[in-house]
Formats: sequence, structure tokens, C-alpha cells
Amino acid sequence: MSQLRRNPLTGRWVTIAADRAARPGDFAPRRLPVEAEHAGPCPFCPGNEEATPPALETYARSGGGWLVRVVPNRYPAFDGPGPMAVTELSPVFTEAPGRGIHEVLVLSPDHGRHWADLEDRQVGLVMAALRDRVEEHGRVPGVRYTQVIVNHGREAGASREHPHGQLLGTPFVPGEIGDEQTGFADHEDRTGQCLLCATVEEELAAAVRVVHADDRVLVVCPFWSGVPYEMLVVPRRHESHLERAAPADLVAVGRSLRGALARLSELLDDPAYNLVLHTAPHRSGGGFHWHVHVLPRVTSLAGFEQGTGVLINIVAPEAAAEQLGERAP
Amino acid sequence: MSQLRRNPLTGRWVTIAADRAARPGDFAPRRLPVEAEHAGPCPFCPGNEEATPPALETYARSGGGWLVRVVPNRYPAFDGPGPMAVTELSPVFTEAPGRGIHEVLVLSPDHGRHWADLEDRQVGLVMAALRDRVEEHGRVPGVRYTQVIVNHGREAGASREHPHGQLLGTPFVPGEIGDEQTGFADHEDRTGQCLLCATVEEELAAAVRVVHADDRVLVVCPFWSGVPYEMLVVPRRHESHLERAAPADLVAVGRSLRGALARLSELLDDPAYNLVLHTAPHRSGGGFHWHVHVLPRVTSLAGFEQGTGVLINIVAPEAAAEQLGERAP
Repeated sequence: MSQLRRNPLTGRWVTIAADRAARPGDFAPRRLPVEAEHAGPCPFCPGNEEATPPALETYARSGGGWLVRVVPNRYPAFDGPGPMAVTELSPVFTEAPGRGIHEVLVLSPDHGRHWADLEDRQVGLVMAALRDRVEEHGRVPGVRYTQVIVNHGREAGASREHPHGQLLGTPFVPGEIGDEQTGFADHEDRTGQCLLCATVEEELAAAVRVVHADDRVLVVCPFWSGVPYEMLVVPRRHESHLERAAPADLVAVGRSLRGALARLSELLDDPAYNLVLHTAPHRSGGGFHWHVHVLPRVTSLAGFEQGTGVLINIVAPEAAAEQLGERAP
Repeated sequence: MSQLRRNPLTGRWVTIAADRAARPGDFAPRRLPVEAEHAGPCPFCPGNEEATPPALETYARSGGGWLVRVVPNRYPAFDGPGPMAVTELSPVFTEAPGRGIHEVLVLSPDHGRHWADLEDRQVGLVMAALRDRVEEHGRVPGVRYTQVIVNHGREAGASREHPHGQLLGTPFVPGEIGDEQTGFADHEDRTGQCLLCATVEEELAAAVRVVHADDRVLVVCPFWSGVPYEMLVVPRRHESHLERAAPADLVAVGRSLRGALARLSELLDDPAYNLVLHTAPHRSGGGFHWHVHVLPRVTSLAGFEQGTGVLINIVAPEAAAEQLGERAP
């Protein structure tokens, strides 16, 4: 089992997952194509189901076979039920077992079909599967938050080419989510409004960073974009928890993501990216508005960004939206 | 001039530096060697001094010529004196001009000689130059903090091969520094001790993560390492500000860094890395202990790390120190 350790300088938890480890030689050369390191057939393709642990859930087509498949991660960063058991070994060293959940969600049976290429029905199944799993995580004792992510391309940390997402159920509320909760609370204290409801209004009024807008979803390159071509996808109906969103809103977010990713892929020749879904912690109250961050990986985070937490973005979001937006030629 | 924008979700400032920008085509292919994108001779090599703005400071050899050279960054992320002038455009949109300082410090006249290869005298000059520039930044109105970094290798964000560091003087205290100030304050409240003085004691006592120790410096793979082969370099004499450190401590930190980087380079075949020097904000009181983070870039930060701030490290620091340490064969 992995181990959580607390960084007392920053207050953030770190996960030591040495079971996922590698020998030094495995780190060089560092520029292999995604698949080159894996021998054998793709474990996420139909017909190779025995290469993964048994499915936790499948969404099937009428004629047999699955369309979306959720399996336990073979090398989980978080594993096993129960509350977070923190041990203070000394004033400086604090640790806890890495309990929680780590699952893989195979987005499609088709090895080459990424989110940008999914059919309407497939998008609906993926969003339904995400909702079901997040809801299920909320029932597991000790799991306080579920992070849904999709890594696309090796620069984004993908270790398999077959399109898939991951769901990580953590036994604590991660620092970034805590920061966002503070952001929502501060804004509400100052204005009486939800921060992202206000952002939707203000971005629509400014009308210079909008990539897509309809009556259910807004996609913008936000005013405060930290990386080139960053996008924020916000459902317009206020809802703290992804798993409580109306099915039509879930589907609308999934489809607008598809459109945004297709434009991004076309514009930048299929760049690597991370999708990050942020939702309220399990069993928490309001004061949040679920949303998706799209973080293209076209530049490297350098020492300044890592050392300060201050991102330097060399493409203004207004210029990015001009290129990504539906009004572009 | 670049522009600062506040991310209201996280409370962190972002720098929009579109003058450093590039057209979409510049982002692909993304895997060029460091130098391939630059035509012409290296602007940091002796003889090409006119390719950079005039030097702010040089450290000369007795026989003429320079050994260390500090020049303004041609594409500054922060530029110009004066306090931070924040404008609240709306409840959501907050901005300020990107005032401050952005300098390049050429570590050596030798294009191929990185920190790991510097001679004793050169290490001394580099550390003296860093101290002088940080001290100078502290005299500039409006500059509240100076971040010193070295990016080595393209995966670490280096855009030039010739070994160099950067000094960024910011008109605000960056989020990560604020977090560390909180970490120091919390530890002192709880124990009456400095967090890094205590860390030195506890890491020496544990004796399983030490890479190098002498009577002036400790180099460890810290208990809470967030990335494989991460190292922390701590001067043992308590001092909040790098620019106030005793010259012998500065030199000792520079030399122990050299040794640690040489071992890292040997072990992992010259990996990319970032050096991050953390020192107390200008004109601030105590409650800090200056130090250096060594962050090898042998894995990519993926969506989970970016979305949560929780790092997953696949090499336990105990194993990393075993391989990096001087007791290793």
C-alpha cells in the first residue's frame, strides 16, 4: 500500500507509491512514445479483458460487448477502505496509509478514439459512468473526495494510448480543492454570489474569451488562464456536486468538452492535455460549483512556476479564445 | 509589459506575458533539442556579449574577461519599478501591471559546463553574484520577493543550453512562499523551533535519507519528497535571508549542490532538473530558513497532481538517497 506523508513546509500531502516504481534505468531515455514501453496487446481493447482486474462496472451495447468499462487500477496510488489514520512520527514527520480508491475508466472500445472523437451516445455513457462512480465513491467510508482526470499524450503523463480516464478517491480533501473552497467562500462573503455563476456572467458580458456558449454550458479561456490555451468548462446551472447534476447538464458538459478538444487538436496538431474535473468533496455542503479544467501541455512548467506557484502564460487567453472559438474561420 | 491576473478560485496570481509569445506553430513539434530552435551563435558565450542587453554586473578573472555575468532578460516576465497597482475590474476580474525584475545570470563562460562541473572558485563567484543581486533587488521599491532558479534541460523549461540561472523580483509574495511562511510559523507555534533546523536534526537522526552532511550543510531526499530523486539542501546555520548568510555557508551550499547534481547526473544520465532557492521575502522578519529544492524532471506531472496539488512519487526517498548518497558504491 502506498503511504501519505505531509510536507510541513507547504501543508500538502504527498503520496509515496513505490509499488508503481521503476529502476533508475526506466527513467532514461525519457522520450519514448506512449506505447513503446509496453509489450503485448493493449489491456483496454475488447478481447483483452483478462489483462485487467475484473470490471467494477460496464456499460454495454444492445448487441453485446461493452462501450465503457471501469476497472481497478493495477498499481493503485490509493487503496482500501477506512478513515485516514494519521501518525505523527515526530514534530516534522507525519504519515498515513494511502487508503482510498484508484480506478480506470476506459472511454471507448476503440483504441484510437479520444474524447474529441466520441459519438453522441458514447459521450452520454462516459458522463453517466463518471457520475455513477463518483456517487459510489461517496458511499465508501473514509473517501472524502474523488478526483476525475483524463491524461492525453505522454507529456500529460499518460502511460497508455488507449483513451481512458482515472478516478482517485482520496481519504482527505486535497490542497487545491481546499483552496477552491476558500475561493468560493471568499467570493460569496464579499458579493453574496457563487464565484463561478458570477464568472459565467462576467465572461459572457466581456465576450472576448468565449470558446462556446449555449444555454447549458460555457467554455472559456478564463481571464486568469495559467497555461496557453487553457479552458474552463462550466455548467450554467449551479450545482456543487457533479453526481447531483441533471443528466442533460452532464451530457452538455461532455459534448462541449468534445467540441473544445476537437478545436484544440485541430489548432495545435493533437497536443497533450489534462482534463481535471473539480467537484465538491463528498458529504460536504454547498459553496462549490462543479467544473472542468482543460490544461493543454504545450509548454513545460519551469523552476519559477514550480518554486512559486505563479504561472507565466505566454499566450493571452483573449488570443487563445480567438483561435479556439467557434467564430474563428 | 506583462500583466498580473488573480485566479479567484485559488487566490494565486498568474502572469500573462504575451510578449514572450509564440504562434501556435511554435508549439509543435514540441520535442526539439534545447538549441535547435535558436539560430546563430550562443548569446551567453564570451565574444557574443552584444547579443544581450548590457551587463548589470560581471565578475572578472584577473587576466581579463568575465567569469559570471548578469544581464536583463530580453523578454522579462516582470519589468519596472514601483509598487503593485491592483485594479479590480469587477468582482471576478482583478489585474495589476507585471512590475518587477527579471535577470539572467550566466553561470560560466564555458557553454558546456553546468553547475555539476563548476570549479571551486567558480562556485564561489556564482554564489556571491546571487547574494549581490538578491541584495540589490531588496533595494528596489516595490520588489517584495526574489526567486532564484536554474532550469537544466528542455523538460525543465530551459530554452538555452548555456548554463544560466534566473532571478525574478516579484511585486508580491508568491503563493508557495506564503505557504512556506505559514509552515514555519505553524511549526514554531507548536514546538518553539525552526522547522528546517528541526528537519536537519530529525533527518540526521533518522539517517536513511541523507545524501551529504558536513558541519555547514545537509543534503537529503526529504521524508516528504514529491518527485523521484528530489533533494533539499539546507544550510545548518539558521538564517532567514540568503543574502545575509555567511560567505562560508553560501559557498558550502554551492559546493554541496555541485556534488549532489554530479551524483544525480551520473545516476540518471544527465536528467533535466530545476533548482529553486527559497529565501525570506525582502524586508520581512524571521520565521524562515533559506534553502534550495532540487527537482529532477524524470516523470511528468499528470492531471491528478495538477488538479489536486497532491504529488504521487513512485520512488521512495529512502531508496533515492541510497542511490544518490556518498555511501553508495
